[in-house]
Amino acid sequence: MKRIKMTVAYDGTNYCGWQVQPNGITIEEVLNTHLSKLLKEEIRVIGASRTDSGVHALANVAVFDTKARMPGDKISFAMNQRLPEDIIVQGSEEVPSDFHPRYCNSVKTYEYKILNRTFNIPSYRLNTHFVYVPLDVEAMKQAAGYLVGRHDFRSFCTPRTQVNDFVREIYALDVSKEGDIITMRISGSGFLYNMVRIIAGTLIRVGSGYYAPEYIPEILEKKDRNAAGPTAPARGLTLIKIDYPLDEDEITD
Amino acid sequence: MKRIKMTVAYDGTNYCGWQVQPNGITIEEVLNTHLSKLLKEEIRVIGASRTDSGVHALANVAVFDTKARMPGDKISFAMNQRLPEDIIVQGSEEVPSDFHPRYCNSVKTYEYKILNRTFNIPSYRLNTHFVYVPLDVEAMKQAAGYLVGRHDFRSFCTPRTQVNDFVREIYALDVSKEGDIITMRISGSGFLYNMVRIIAGTLIRVGSGYYAPEYIPEILEKKDRNAAGPTAPARGLTLIKIDYPLDEDEITD
Repeated sequence: MKRIKMTVAYDGTNYCGWQVQPNGITIEEVLNTHLSKLLKEEIRVIGASRTDSGVHALANVAVFDTKARMPGDKISFAMNQRLPEDIIVQGSEEVPSDFHPRYCNSVKTYEYKILNRTFNIPSYRLNTHFVYVPLDVEAMKQAAGYLVGRHDFRSFCTPRTQVNDFVREIYALDVSKEGDIITMRISGSGFLYNMVRIIAGTLIRVGSGYYAPEYIPEILEKKDRNAAGPTAPARGLTLIKIDYPLDEDEITD
Repeated sequence: MKRIKMTVAYDGTNYCGWQVQPNGITIEEVLNTHLSKLLKEEIRVIGASRTDSGVHALANVAVFDTKARMPGDKISFAMNQRLPEDIIVQGSEEVPSDFHPRYCNSVKTYEYKILNRTFNIPSYRLNTHFVYVPLDVEAMKQAAGYLVGRHDFRSFCTPRTQVNDFVREIYALDVSKEGDIITMRISGSGFLYNMVRIIAGTLIRVGSGYYAPEYIPEILEKKDRNAAGPTAPARGLTLIKIDYPLDEDEITD
């Protein structure tokens, strides 16, 4: 028995998110089906990030155990012969049997992309959120600064979330503009349900002048979802990477 | 009666190209249908570039005549309320009644995008051509240099094309790389059928080492389609812009 870590990129447009659910097809389900056929045993992957319906990934991580003899690094090639063109394995490798994609100190990086111009561009519509009101990027940068660090993010979390601790740490939150595209890049050890999209929706309100940047600390203070902006649409969000810190053994290696 | 010039962006993935044809839905047909409904008269647009099935555009040009009172610049907004999300009008304006989108000295600029890495990325798959063989961009640049200028491009044209004159002028042909994306940007007054995609397919052969850059003048010399590389897939091609030179009246205006 060996444990395999697979890095997976997908266009989330046509999927009901990562996690298996009764009402529609999911990334996890497609991976389970094709891995099971390929390796001729029932495979159940564990995902690092259970992305929502419509959210994309360049590098989500899926882990599974297998008795199959196929070398870990060959699984990516074999899987890409079978997968639909909107899910592509970017790499696979054998990992220690105690590696779990969620229960370790990983750093997740997401990007939220906004297309900011008078009219939408069809080729960009699946991966960016279109906003026609001109956005003030400097104000958005200033607002983002207030969110970096360790805070209670209850105001930036969908109310129905079943967690006890709303404190999370944002390591970095950068807003940049290139041409008509505004990119919000955020890194942290973990995020609450819809947190990244609510931050994006709130920064868009700042950029449009609806909120002053200085209102952000007040939103955090209120610990109330109604104080923040709307949840920005899924299509603008992409999971860019998940970094797993080296443990001491690997560092001294 | 007034003549309207409309700039149109589209994702060509789900269309059988620009020109109306019996076997599938086309961009021209969708524009005719919605313009006719909007303006309550039968409208037939004339397109500047009759792009192929699967080819995209940021700014193709469609021209039509109408008796409707709606101001020229308002037509874009009204049309975008009606069009599907993969066709979006970028602007509309009244033009002189003798303006024809094809019979004048315009400059067309296309980009062909290649994603060059080990595995494809799902989010890029509709707008780039994926090539896993590492491509030598410097060799491609050198090869491109031989194509710039006025040449008989018979070797770079689908044989069934019904034209008498195969001489065309390429004003600029630049190859650049950013991250994993190689972009071939080409400008000219006009191109033969499939010419841009055959040039792309030929430059990919140069990049992969299959052709030496110095073989390009020989391909031109041969005036034989079989001498050049394959027609690269439509999905990588986007019509970027069409520049119409100002006539003297406008310059002195």
